[in-house]
Amino acid sequence: MTNKKKKWSALFSAPLDARVAKFNASVRFDYRLAEHDIVSSLAHATMLQNQGIISDSDGDAIKTGLNTILEEIKDNRFDWREEDEDVHFNIERRLVELSGDAGKRLHTARSRNDQVATDLRLFVRARIDMLQKSLSDARCALLTQAEQHVNTLMPGMTHLQVAQPISFAHHMLAYEDMLNRDSARFADCRRRVNILPLGAGALAGTGHPIDRQQVATALAFDGLCENSMDAVSDRDFAIEFTSAAAILMMHLSRFCEEVILWSSPAFGCITLADAFCTGSSIMPQKKNPDVPELIRGKCGRVTGSLTALLMLMKSQPLAYNKDNQEDKEPVFDCADTVQECTDIFAAMVSAINVKVARMRTLLEAGYPTATELADYLVKQGLPFRQAHDVVATIIKTLSTTGTRLEEMTLKELQQHVPQADAGALEVLSAEYAVQARNHVGGTAPEEIERQIKRRREILTVESTSN
Amino acid sequence: MTNKKKKWSALFSAPLDARVAKFNASVRFDYRLAEHDIVSSLAHATMLQNQGIISDSDGDAIKTGLNTILEEIKDNRFDWREEDEDVHFNIERRLVELSGDAGKRLHTARSRNDQVATDLRLFVRARIDMLQKSLSDARCALLTQAEQHVNTLMPGMTHLQVAQPISFAHHMLAYEDMLNRDSARFADCRRRVNILPLGAGALAGTGHPIDRQQVATALAFDGLCENSMDAVSDRDFAIEFTSAAAILMMHLSRFCEEVILWSSPAFGCITLADAFCTGSSIMPQKKNPDVPELIRGKCGRVTGSLTALLMLMKSQPLAYNKDNQEDKEPVFDCADTVQECTDIFAAMVSAINVKVARMRTLLEAGYPTATELADYLVKQGLPFRQAHDVVATIIKTLSTTGTRLEEMTLKELQQHVPQADAGALEVLSAEYAVQARNHVGGTAPEEIERQIKRRREILTVESTSN
Amino acid sequence: MTNKKKKWSALFSAPLDARVAKFNASVRFDYRLAEHDIVSSLAHATMLQNQGIISDSDGDAIKTGLNTILEEIKDNRFDWREEDEDVHFNIERRLVELSGDAGKRLHTARSRNDQVATDLRLFVRARIDMLQKSLSDARCALLTQAEQHVNTLMPGMTHLQVAQPISFAHHMLAYEDMLNRDSARFADCRRRVNILPLGAGALAGTGHPIDRQQVATALAFDGLCENSMDAVSDRDFAIEFTSAAAILMMHLSRFCEEVILWSSPAFGCITLADAFCTGSSIMPQKKNPDVPELIRGKCGRVTGSLTALLMLMKSQPLAYNKDNQEDKEPVFDCADTVQECTDIFAAMVSAINVKVARMRTLLEAGYPTATELADYLVKQGLPFRQAHDVVATIIKTLSTTGTRLEEMTLKELQQHVPQADAGALEVLSAEYAVQARNHVGGTAPEEIERQIKRRREILTVESTSN
Amino acid sequence: MTNKKKKWSALFSAPLDARVAKFNASVRFDYRLAEHDIVSSLAHATMLQNQGIISDSDGDAIKTGLNTILEEIKDNRFDWREEDEDVHFNIERRLVELSGDAGKRLHTARSRNDQVATDLRLFVRARIDMLQKSLSDARCALLTQAEQHVNTLMPGMTHLQVAQPISFAHHMLAYEDMLNRDSARFADCRRRVNILPLGAGALAGTGHPIDRQQVATALAFDGLCENSMDAVSDRDFAIEFTSAAAILMMHLSRFCEEVILWSSPAFGCITLADAFCTGSSIMPQKKNPDVPELIRGKCGRVTGSLTALLMLMKSQPLAYNKDNQEDKEPVFDCADTVQECTDIFAAMVSAINVKVARMRTLLEAGYPTATELADYLVKQGLPFRQAHDVVATIIKTLSTTGTRLEEMTLKELQQHVPQADAGALEVLSAEYAVQARNHVGGTAPEEIERQIKRRREILTVESTSN
Repeated sequence: MTNKKKKWSALFSAPLDARVAKFNASVRFDYRLAEHDIVSSLAHATMLQNQGIISDSDGDAIKTGLNTILEEIKDNRFDWREEDEDVHFNIERRLVELSGDAGKRLHTARSRNDQVATDLRLFVRARIDMLQKSLSDARCALLTQAEQHVNTLMPGMTHLQVAQPISFAHHMLAYEDMLNRDSARFADCRRRVNILPLGAGALAGTGHPIDRQQVATALAFDGLCENSMDAVSDRDFAIEFTSAAAILMMHLSRFCEEVILWSSPAFGCITLADAFCTGSSIMPQKKNPDVPELIRGKCGRVTGSLTALLMLMKSQPLAYNKDNQEDKEPVFDCADTVQECTDIFAAMVSAINVKVARMRTLLEAGYPTATELADYLVKQGLPFRQAHDVVATIIKTLSTTGTRLEEMTLKELQQHVPQADAGALEVLSAEYAVQARNHVGGTAPEEIERQIKRRREILTVESTSN
Repeated sequence: MTNKKKKWSALFSAPLDARVAKFNASVRFDYRLAEHDIVSSLAHATMLQNQGIISDSDGDAIKTGLNTILEEIKDNRFDWREEDEDVHFNIERRLVELSGDAGKRLHTARSRNDQVATDLRLFVRARIDMLQKSLSDARCALLTQAEQHVNTLMPGMTHLQVAQPISFAHHMLAYEDMLNRDSARFADCRRRVNILPLGAGALAGTGHPIDRQQVATALAFDGLCENSMDAVSDRDFAIEFTSAAAILMMHLSRFCEEVILWSSPAFGCITLADAFCTGSSIMPQKKNPDVPELIRGKCGRVTGSLTALLMLMKSQPLAYNKDNQEDKEPVFDCADTVQECTDIFAAMVSAINVKVARMRTLLEAGYPTATELADYLVKQGLPFRQAHDVVATIIKTLSTTGTRLEEMTLKELQQHVPQADAGALEVLSAEYAVQARNHVGGTAPEEIERQIKRRREILTVESTSN
Repeated sequence: MTNKKKKWSALFSAPLDARVAKFNASVRFDYRLAEHDIVSSLAHATMLQNQGIISDSDGDAIKTGLNTILEEIKDNRFDWREEDEDVHFNIERRLVELSGDAGKRLHTARSRNDQVATDLRLFVRARIDMLQKSLSDARCALLTQAEQHVNTLMPGMTHLQVAQPISFAHHMLAYEDMLNRDSARFADCRRRVNILPLGAGALAGTGHPIDRQQVATALAFDGLCENSMDAVSDRDFAIEFTSAAAILMMHLSRFCEEVILWSSPAFGCITLADAFCTGSSIMPQKKNPDVPELIRGKCGRVTGSLTALLMLMKSQPLAYNKDNQEDKEPVFDCADTVQECTDIFAAMVSAINVKVARMRTLLEAGYPTATELADYLVKQGLPFRQAHDVVATIIKTLSTTGTRLEEMTLKELQQHVPQADAGALEVLSAEYAVQARNHVGGTAPEEIERQIKRRREILTVESTSN
Repeated sequence: MTNKKKKWSALFSAPLDARVAKFNASVRFDYRLAEHDIVSSLAHATMLQNQGIISDSDGDAIKTGLNTILEEIKDNRFDWREEDEDVHFNIERRLVELSGDAGKRLHTARSRNDQVATDLRLFVRARIDMLQKSLSDARCALLTQAEQHVNTLMPGMTHLQVAQPISFAHHMLAYEDMLNRDSARFADCRRRVNILPLGAGALAGTGHPIDRQQVATALAFDGLCENSMDAVSDRDFAIEFTSAAAILMMHLSRFCEEVILWSSPAFGCITLADAFCTGSSIMPQKKNPDVPELIRGKCGRVTGSLTALLMLMKSQPLAYNKDNQEDKEPVFDCADTVQECTDIFAAMVSAINVKVARMRTLLEAGYPTATELADYLVKQGLPFRQAHDVVATIIKTLSTTGTRLEEMTLKELQQHVPQADAGALEVLSAEYAVQARNHVGGTAPEEIERQIKRRREILTVESTSN
């Protein structure tokens, strides 16, 4: 079977060109599907046997052989050969070596087209499950940081300018919400991944009396691909997985951008543990936030894989075309990248040390309670647009002397708003502003605590339901 | 309010540069959100009034004004001004003209940041609902074609080579399955779209005693964005919508590729109704399949929008940044493109006339039942790999004389397989092959009919639940 | 001619479906090619006349008609009709109205396929020329900032950590180098744009005795597309233009990111003139750097267009397919975006006010001359890796007391490097470090001045050669 | 040096986290730069020695050590260690083992930032040169096919409908023109690649008295990066290379699409040599055009890399950030993909066997000379638009009886065009049509031969100038 001339039979007048054989071969990357390939072959063989399509003795020989091969692969003793093209033919070649004619019967009632589609779905399903665990860890790490900083106030920024006071906990919860959505997206994706294509044959099913549901049950699939042509050519599940991954990476890139900013001496709001920084080969004073930079840098890579997959599938006529061999590398790379980044992200979140005083200093320099004052004036009867303008004038005046809003006296205030009373000054503290936003989604400590508690509960439910 | 100097108040020493004003202005495209902006403002105003944040008379004046503006916009009488920057300020300016100080109170307890996020979610939600209707039409059109061609046999192709016999119905069902998944993806996406950001203010919520759930209920949102910073900066829903749209467009591109191929004289399997073709300005004999080509051509555009949105959001620090103004055009273009393409696609499917005889001719020329013969030999006891090889030899022999598989005599067969009996010849007809695949997802007419029936039922359920 | 039934002639049994007509029509966007379409038609008509393919009177009538139409378009009096599909048929319809049968002869020896390819090349060529002018302005603005800040020292950063002292001029020159490359790329692209497709007909040329070189000369093309099939289907020039634009936008996004960082109160290194900032609808204290954020946000859009164009062209069989109608909108949007962004960028660069003292403060806090000290020790005989380690130890010690490198005494130094002499202290000033890098590309003021001078000269040469 | 604690010196209180070390390490892919790294280090060491920055004995020891390492790497004896992070530190570690303190002096006056930029430029330069050779081979293969088929007529298609007669040679030349432009683009790109960053240090140059021009000359660079910050952070050259590669792949995808179509039994215009096809694991009759499908499938991959790189660089502040480590894998993958595809493409072109008679049959069935007849009528005085309509009517009539245009009698013609003469019939042969297009870029055999000749000359000039 290692000779292509034999493989493509008497129909061909020449063996495959050596360069073409190398170009076509996919075993250098699809060997990664080996375990899934064997598991699905075991289920297929059992079904063939149960249905009487192959004899019991053939079925038993196949299963023994496949289990032996699984061991060889796990022990790194398997002899992968490029001339056998792909993971499927490599395993089949070895199976025939081990079990003779029985091995040649395994491919009854299936094609590599439905086989590889099954293997890739098993791979994606396994990686979603692994990733969900890591997302859970990352969310826990964010909640733990949040718990420690419910009362650590910092400047909430828009346009990278100081906007309003928030707590570091509130900031962390924003990201927890993002990762929460990511988990939900992967869960939705999983439902569309977890459908069995096996039985679709090359494109039209098979004339053998197979029982697809039996295989689906054995492999824990939730259902069957219901059209054989779609079954072998559908790669939506891979694209959807990559799309969810691209959004996740975008979220991580945003967090990492902030970690990089906050670690920069200009901000100086946090330090990242030394174990997460590296130095410079030339500048002795450097501590560089390599980890968040590298995660940020990996964001484009996953979007690139998404682009590649969509472009790959564009305009392909039904059913299977060789183009589809190109689906695997982007999916593998995407799965590895998000897995690695999510894991290291979770660890990095825990390695953040907040410099509470510096956060406060940055906050106070930015007139963060200007909106409170405007809102106060609104409650006193001014239309909002007018109140907004009065406060802008006040800040312009204060900024000439470097006075903070909190330091303003009632007299100074009354120069701008004659009717203002002492209550106006009370709203100028950051604590007041944070406390006042006590609605759902607001900054008040009780609300933050409620959210942390609720999220902990959600995570517990999710982890037990997995 | 039409003077920027006034708008940005006393804090600013100079009015906005005229070029900058033009550059910043978004009203030339975000005017499309006007209706959603007014609907959400009505809900906001009612809540402010119910909560006593504004007076009843102010609330009533605002609502009257907004309804007037809605009429003006619908009647194309509204005076859109670029110097008012965006849809929000244009409407507010007019509201103040109509209702004076009351109008200035509408913006109490909200910011443009949570306002625009709300408007865009309302837009996407509305477009998903409209698209679902069109997807339903497209799926119906595919099922109708399928119903008419359960027994129309054609070459099922892989690698654009004849593989095995299928029916045209089977081919249509493959696409119905794809669009079915598209519907499911948009439905999943809708759940994440339909969450209310309003109340998040600029980024930190508001100190006014708002009731967000009241607004959510009024606007038929399923829930509340639970973190104010995430609420104003989350654009996942737009990306997810665009991603689902990109996959849908990829599906349409595949179908269109096949329509183009089948309409080409080389295939000549179908004709597209003249109403769906155009001629050439120079070549009098041409009938060009412009419609499927244009749909195929629009596929890249939606992937381009997806790339744009992911790149837009990459590395943005929290919370809102002006970058996000760039979210609207890709989403609008994507929504328009998929809507238009899905509608025209549904009409095009119905305009396909199948040339049944030509399909049969193409089928028979390709030895489409070679697999049947191999499978037959397997049932006779040959290992599959060996049977495969024998059949390849037979085909090589037949091809030298241009003989079809069905035309082979038992004697000819026995030269290659001495033990073959008359049963072997029976498996060589396309009808036999199609009928034999009677498992779930197979090509047998009963299975096809079962699937058509079931899909019709699903569509009925979906359309009544909408 | 406004009736499609007539247009596609007797071959068609039904007029175009109304939805299809709307779907196919491109005049809503390709009207932008009108001027180029008329200019190329004028050259085509003159050639037809010179070659005796049409009569002089027909030629003259056509030219008079086209010039009239050009006026109508410029004056916004032209009656664009969607039912005439595209810019070409709209103009032809009007020409026939104005000049009767003569007008019907204009389309002799050409097709819309070579016509639109010519128009789009003229468009791209014009936009490259316009953009080069703006790039020149932007580079001048950078050089002017550089001239003013040859001695303004700031922290050169890697990983957003203080690395080594540089001048603000040096930083500006980095961007000038980027834009310099952008200009070169657009110039290279222009050479491949400026080749004439007209004469390629629908795909195979024409049997009329045309003279393509005559048309090329009239339209200032540098050469002829040499294969008619390639001529009508080549869109490389559009992709290459968009690719160059995507790189340019990436450069602008980097500069804008820095402007946003530097304007943030944490950095506080620059202010952007009020005319380039906007306020908040809710927070009275805000001054937001909307301009750089919006430019940064537009970066993804151009990459999206590039993706769209590459995906559009993927796998298209020769020669022209309707898909190609989708080439225009991405090119138009790309051209508009880079033009607008480059113009506003040039203005924004001039609106940057450097806060010199704050830059110095940020610089000194970061041990920026640590490398100098290590290099000094190398000159004293230590291997570099060892010197690096010694300095790291020194900095660790200094940082415990908040001492800057420049404040270190010789005694303190000698505790770590016994053999150190007073010369070691001299290298610790930022001025020393900047001055020492006096090689090509280094930070020394003379080198900076040399570079500014040379770049000014290059810009002068480029602008006179345009 | 294998211990990170030592590497990042006394400044760090903890060694790098093990997961972080793994995450940060790039040696598993950047080992591919080893040869370039050593070559540039040799040039750097020589310069340091010449400038007296290191001693002669140190210089000699370094060079001996580096040459030893080069041998070890070529012989696969080098001990790559992930704990040494990247290719640079791996080589340096070994150099210190081999040459002691001398080895520690190699890194004088450079940083990994300018070092890796230099290495990557050397890599891209080498790959461009290798690719140009392959492009040359591919163009030769196309010209050879063209030479053999100057008189093989086939249907020139637009919209995959028969348009006008062309020769197979003409079709091949279209692709030769595309690859010609690709070569030009890579040549332009090479000029911007071939500029030396070394000497830029970490970001600001170096205080050592280096001579950058000396290094540039030694490494055959055409010039120096003129700003040190730009030098270390510029990745334009990688993006431009990838962009040129994406366009090249798009061209290959178009050709491959046509090969797949032409090999399909519906077209049946060509056969691809068996050595370039593969069979099916299940269907014995299949010969699949795997090679063109796989090339077509790899098209999206390179566009994906381009997207990844543009997204990577977006918004990065100056100068070097760790994100940039992510530049290598897309560039490597892109270089490998285009190299492999171009090589196999060249071989595939030669493996195409044209079925001349089948091409002719397809041509004649499509009324390919309808335009000739219309043009003839124009020469007789009809306006083109009218002639177009008359011919459409003729074809409608002919198609009812399946008559070809060439078979039409004068009498039949005169029923539609009373004034028509026998000359009209002469223009109806495909040979006439092809011959008549004898202008530059047209289909006439002499013009095709002129172009083949000229292109052969260009290729000869290019190959000798390389």
